[in-house]
Amino acid sequence: MASVGVIGGGQLARMMTPPAINLGLDLKVLSEAEGSSAALATTQVGDYTHLDVVREFAQTVDVITFDHEHVPLPVLEALESEGVKVNPPSKALAFAQNKLKMRKRLGALGLPMPAWAEIQDADALQTFIDTHGGVAILKTPIGGYDGKGVRVVRSADDAIDWLGNLEQYGGSLLAEEKVDFVRELAQLSARRPSGEFKAWPLVQTIQENGVCSVVISPAPDASADTLEATAEIARKVAEGLEVTGVMAVEMFEARDGRLLINELAMRPHNSGHFSIEGSVTSQFEQHIRAVSDLPLGSTKPTAAHAVMVNLLGVDDKNNFVQAYDKALAAHPTAKVHTYGKGARAGRKMGHVTVVSNDLEFALAEAKGAAAVLLRG
Amino acid sequence: MASVGVIGGGQLARMMTPPAINLGLDLKVLSEAEGSSAALATTQVGDYTHLDVVREFAQTVDVITFDHEHVPLPVLEALESEGVKVNPPSKALAFAQNKLKMRKRLGALGLPMPAWAEIQDADALQTFIDTHGGVAILKTPIGGYDGKGVRVVRSADDAIDWLGNLEQYGGSLLAEEKVDFVRELAQLSARRPSGEFKAWPLVQTIQENGVCSVVISPAPDASADTLEATAEIARKVAEGLEVTGVMAVEMFEARDGRLLINELAMRPHNSGHFSIEGSVTSQFEQHIRAVSDLPLGSTKPTAAHAVMVNLLGVDDKNNFVQAYDKALAAHPTAKVHTYGKGARAGRKMGHVTVVSNDLEFALAEAKGAAAVLLRG
Repeated sequence: MASVGVIGGGQLARMMTPPAINLGLDLKVLSEAEGSSAALATTQVGDYTHLDVVREFAQTVDVITFDHEHVPLPVLEALESEGVKVNPPSKALAFAQNKLKMRKRLGALGLPMPAWAEIQDADALQTFIDTHGGVAILKTPIGGYDGKGVRVVRSADDAIDWLGNLEQYGGSLLAEEKVDFVRELAQLSARRPSGEFKAWPLVQTIQENGVCSVVISPAPDASADTLEATAEIARKVAEGLEVTGVMAVEMFEARDGRLLINELAMRPHNSGHFSIEGSVTSQFEQHIRAVSDLPLGSTKPTAAHAVMVNLLGVDDKNNFVQAYDKALAAHPTAKVHTYGKGARAGRKMGHVTVVSNDLEFALAEAKGAAAVLLRG
Repeated sequence: MASVGVIGGGQLARMMTPPAINLGLDLKVLSEAEGSSAALATTQVGDYTHLDVVREFAQTVDVITFDHEHVPLPVLEALESEGVKVNPPSKALAFAQNKLKMRKRLGALGLPMPAWAEIQDADALQTFIDTHGGVAILKTPIGGYDGKGVRVVRSADDAIDWLGNLEQYGGSLLAEEKVDFVRELAQLSARRPSGEFKAWPLVQTIQENGVCSVVISPAPDASADTLEATAEIARKVAEGLEVTGVMAVEMFEARDGRLLINELAMRPHNSGHFSIEGSVTSQFEQHIRAVSDLPLGSTKPTAAHAVMVNLLGVDDKNNFVQAYDKALAAHPTAKVHTYGKGARAGRKMGHVTVVSNDLEFALAEAKGAAAVLLRG
């Protein structure tokens, strides 16, 4: 039996477990701690930054993949040199771990993105701000996620703390044009080591406070040209960066119509959770198939529309399960997912998906179910 | 967190695991042996016929349910008297464990079924045969499944071995009219302890050698009247026998149009596997919800048609996973399930489901994928 090893015990590893059970593939998880979200499939608990820990885990599986992108490259490079299969490989993850490296590579591939510059001092930052409408998005090249490691700056003075600790971020910051966008989009895709590539329909993502709140699949009113263009962008990124497994390309749709690459995730992604019910093949099943170099499944939608609403923790008590009586009774078509995490305000603890041929119904049902769950 | 305990580590317990993960409910399994099909969720290994074993397991969960119907009633009655929640309860399982008891109860409820008689000697059997066209279906009231414990008899002499060991079967045999049927149907439904009841659309089941081979949902060409009638039969059975959780009512569609109850299963059933992809709520999710007395989910189909084809073991080598490369490449819409069982000829080891608005496509894809998997 083919076995897949996932480093990281978060909700993404958890959600890979059902398709592994269905397909009869053996999923093993290296978790950071006991009682993780992916505890059921956890076979080892340990520190993924230690080569000996990861090596021990790797010896129990046929291929290594990830719940997150934070495993140190030297650890993965060492394993790869020892013959361990790692998907996505370290050479691809290098771009996910360093946004500057990613921008440079996307630039070399001629892919569309916001104007950007590598920033190593205040003068360079001020010049970038001055030439881009008096504002810039400043990012730390490493370590940012869900709104962390990102700020809007209108003057170099706004960033003196980061500029004064450059070595902590790899010696440089990344300044990007503040795009005047009408909405945010995400293009989910998967690629096998042997080359097969498949894309899902483009989705729209709606953020609140820098965190994904709602996903609508497919992106409303996206033209056939746009759908084709974004799938082609994803293909070029996946091939150009040698990504394997599932990848999400987050994009801005600018007011002037341009589609600009914002972020990349080289793993199943929040923008693809809708696919569990909304696609013939979910991103989690596809990821397992892709990293195992098995043929990819159909990415056709199961209905005209799918809406996913995130369940963010409201306090340190409501785990959403306690509200199932009310929520499930009022919303029988809502597919409720909770991740087995302790309650904490702002934490991604679950999501709700509704699939329907009626978009208004799907939006109302998903948001309605989420509202009941959030009220507790 | 609500926790559900499943007695039995077969594929039904295995397939309850994904929806439990999704819903964030804790599923625990009492397996007969290490390495069962439901090994991932197994928290205890032991003999379910021993009260002390089952009691120990019951203390770790909020409610007990089943992968099979073979737990001795005295074990369950003892637990119930100690306050353990058991769904379905022993009073319902009593009918599933004894076909004679079931026939008597269905008769008292006025539900449609083949003519039948309790048989305690050769004369009674010969009389039944003589008055029902010279043939009868003879069943052992206890212990039969998948074609075992059932035979066609044309004379009392055909059953002398069973008639000579009556005490082994509880003192009686069950003779049933051999129905001249045009096809077999199954009506899946679920009921909560607090009474809520939901039915799925009626399906057609196609058997080979007494074992389910193909399921088509909904049953082709079933009239609205038939769909209503079979759902109502299921409701009357569930309420009349006080069944909780998922129940399958297997029926004959007689040549004269009558719908006659053949068998009952008080658990998720092979005829409902299509619902994993083919229904908004699968039978496995519904079962967990029902036995936990949570509101039931929508049983609407996700597309016009679903076709499920069983994967029966062909030899002691082919585990189907080895054929994934070919099968998945040729059939990207097929949802392949394997149960993690050792290969053995004739064993139920997996199934394939295809959901589509085109029945011919679904049949061809599901059968095509199964054929590739079976060839190895």
